[in-house]
Amino acid sequence: MIDASRVGLTLGPMDHRVTWRDVILYHLGIGARASDLHLVWEGAPGGLQVCPSYAVIPAFQPFFHVLKELKIDLRTVLHGEEAIRLHGPIPAQGVLKTTVRVAGIYDKKKAALVVLETRTTDEAGTALFDTRASLFCRGLGGWGGDPGPKAESVPVPRDRAPDFEISQRTIEEQAALYRLSGDVNPLHIDPETAKAAGFPKPILHGLCTFGFATRAILEGACGGEVHRLKAFQVRFADVVFPGERITTRGWKLEDGRYAVQAETKRAVVLSHAVAEVEG
Amino acid sequence: MIDASRVGLTLGPMDHRVTWRDVILYHLGIGARASDLHLVWEGAPGGLQVCPSYAVIPAFQPFFHVLKELKIDLRTVLHGEEAIRLHGPIPAQGVLKTTVRVAGIYDKKKAALVVLETRTTDEAGTALFDTRASLFCRGLGGWGGDPGPKAESVPVPRDRAPDFEISQRTIEEQAALYRLSGDVNPLHIDPETAKAAGFPKPILHGLCTFGFATRAILEGACGGEVHRLKAFQVRFADVVFPGERITTRGWKLEDGRYAVQAETKRAVVLSHAVAEVEG
Repeated sequence: MIDASRVGLTLGPMDHRVTWRDVILYHLGIGARASDLHLVWEGAPGGLQVCPSYAVIPAFQPFFHVLKELKIDLRTVLHGEEAIRLHGPIPAQGVLKTTVRVAGIYDKKKAALVVLETRTTDEAGTALFDTRASLFCRGLGGWGGDPGPKAESVPVPRDRAPDFEISQRTIEEQAALYRLSGDVNPLHIDPETAKAAGFPKPILHGLCTFGFATRAILEGACGGEVHRLKAFQVRFADVVFPGERITTRGWKLEDGRYAVQAETKRAVVLSHAVAEVEG
Repeated sequence: MIDASRVGLTLGPMDHRVTWRDVILYHLGIGARASDLHLVWEGAPGGLQVCPSYAVIPAFQPFFHVLKELKIDLRTVLHGEEAIRLHGPIPAQGVLKTTVRVAGIYDKKKAALVVLETRTTDEAGTALFDTRASLFCRGLGGWGGDPGPKAESVPVPRDRAPDFEISQRTIEEQAALYRLSGDVNPLHIDPETAKAAGFPKPILHGLCTFGFATRAILEGACGGEVHRLKAFQVRFADVVFPGERITTRGWKLEDGRYAVQAETKRAVVLSHAVAEVEG
């Protein structure tokens, strides 16, 4: 059983050293093309830019520590939702400092829903970005606790064509490459582990799909300028297998935000997704 | 003009720290597939293996230092030939120590040919592997010096089918990925640098092609067992562009060695190539 009284637990700050090599490796992991010089070359005119979805990377080790502290077996965890909010550009070099806080522990009957929030600053303490992750911990619910708030629903306007539609191929090695950025869960590389979890083969990391969708939004709604994406949140609706093509569509809403949806030929993979784009 | 009296110059040993992450990144750079678990997963049954062509990686920084010492502008350098010889398995973790020696400086009229030999040991001093690289330094020849020995010629037996033929695709991002293993020459990522060097677009690293061919030999002649490849030498006959398919063929010779040739649809890219395979 999970200890719901641990809400408020805060760990950190923990250091994450980032170099141009890590940034480029991450970008190739989320499918950046060789022609996206600003994402794949440390000598690019104007400098190497960092895709906003990199915000999830320094949060990985802190999550790991919290789950250990809460005595949650990693193998029970399913990533339900992810949100990022940017306060400024992410530097391609230096030390990032991340603090993680248990923002909620909810009872979803078959699972406990653990909500983790992070804030990452530079070494001087200036806030760079925040993340919020909702993790389903299977088998740990059912203590009669608070089921938590309902998620904000931003319906996709199905009566009109999307304002952008970007199709991206993943390669068979996409998960093998993405995992070098930190999440080395064998579910994403080992056929036996994948089978034990009920999948026919290793699956792509949800946060890799999140990165592909982020690149699609940059291309479709931000003119390729990384600093214009201010926030992005998604629900992980289904898995992607390495080698599948991901199509991301965005509809501009009246309030200026974009309703976003990503799918493969098989299924919608990111739903309930909203992006905030500057000007 | 180059100072031919510097033959014998020895630098090092220089340290190269290797981790499983570096090894896997290198293997993905030379096209390892997600299903090659022993090359892409640190948790693979039997452990992560290291492709023998990794021998060229710890030699990169020492080469760089020698060329600086000889006052050779990197932009004039063309990689002519490469050879590796393995004395034992390459560890996937630890510190490798590499010593480099200028083995020859020859006068090829339009260029100086600089031959660099390296020996790499583990921390205890046990020899792991040697490399020999022939570098053409354009514009630095013509001092009336020794033209050097003629290269050994191992003709491909064109009268019979090869004993193995392996076709491998490269991806458009192959050079962008391979360069993260150390050779960050902009020729392999920047279209402007490539144009200035006379190429329509960035070219694949010769040593990346060398890695693809090494993987082909492992598959075609070594039953996938990395320790069975004892030596491999090649001449870089033409360039490969990222995205092209490389076909490597091997013919078993009477002395047990393999004559090897690699080509794209456009050209033979590795010629004068010989591999020594155990048992």
